[in-house]
Amino acid sequence: MKNLKIADILLVEDNPSDVKLTLKALQKHNLANKVVVVQDGEEALDYIFSKGKYSMRDINEKLKVIFLDLKLPKVDGLEVLKIIKSDEATKLIPVVVLTSSKEERDIIESYKLGVNSYIVKPVDFDQFLKSVADIGLYWLLINEPPSS
Amino acid sequence: MKNLKIADILLVEDNPSDVKLTLKALQKHNLANKVVVVQDGEEALDYIFSKGKYSMRDINEKLKVIFLDLKLPKVDGLEVLKIIKSDEATKLIPVVVLTSSKEERDIIESYKLGVNSYIVKPVDFDQFLKSVADIGLYWLLINEPPSS
Repeated sequence: MKNLKIADILLVEDNPSDVKLTLKALQKHNLANKVVVVQDGEEALDYIFSKGKYSMRDINEKLKVIFLDLKLPKVDGLEVLKIIKSDEATKLIPVVVLTSSKEERDIIESYKLGVNSYIVKPVDFDQFLKSVADIGLYWLLINEPPSS
Repeated sequence: MKNLKIADILLVEDNPSDVKLTLKALQKHNLANKVVVVQDGEEALDYIFSKGKYSMRDINEKLKVIFLDLKLPKVDGLEVLKIIKSDEATKLIPVVVLTSSKEERDIIESYKLGVNSYIVKPVDFDQFLKSVADIGLYWLLINEPPSS
């Protein structure tokens, strides 16, 4: 039942090594205890809309931010983004795309769909840790989410 | 003609003391040289849409981010946000509301209008400097804007 804890961050990431690094970076700033990790787009939507194995989750417990990879199994990241941003119940939740894609069409399409921020994952290990920490601090401690 | 330089950040702020502090914080991280400051909502729209005294500005030189106060002379911040986010030419530009308002209706309305991030200005002097620096670094160096 550990995934039913109250989460501030939903991390949607299928690459185990990126998940590990992201949690390590957040841990360093004591931000890792409120992260829930899901590994494909379908599970992300189940979590966000309190469906399937997350049907017991209280949909009123708003996430402060969703970190969303683009290349995901089952349901693609852009499709997940589109669904979140076109549903009245979820469209105000800040979504940050966190991807290795630098492709202009992915960037533009994400902004068109209403992404709040688009981050290209740094390839360098230390830079990745630093960036993820900064991103976590920004969206948890500096940004004011709509649910607060 | 100094306002016709190519800007990365448009700072829309009518409080001279907040302008000074914001520039000081950005300066510290060498981010202040690409900031243009406008002091009311009308001038902000003129700059963004290359009208009035900014008609010589190349509209294709995209801003990386707009920092927008809410309580503004002439045209209110929420109205400026609404206009930016409903025009195809400008809707993808990241907009960060930077305000002293903690009112839930301002927060919700901003997100409904499509703001990318909402920041409540810290009251404490040092905390203000630190936050503005973090916000500048985030939107100039970490976030990938749609124009890049």
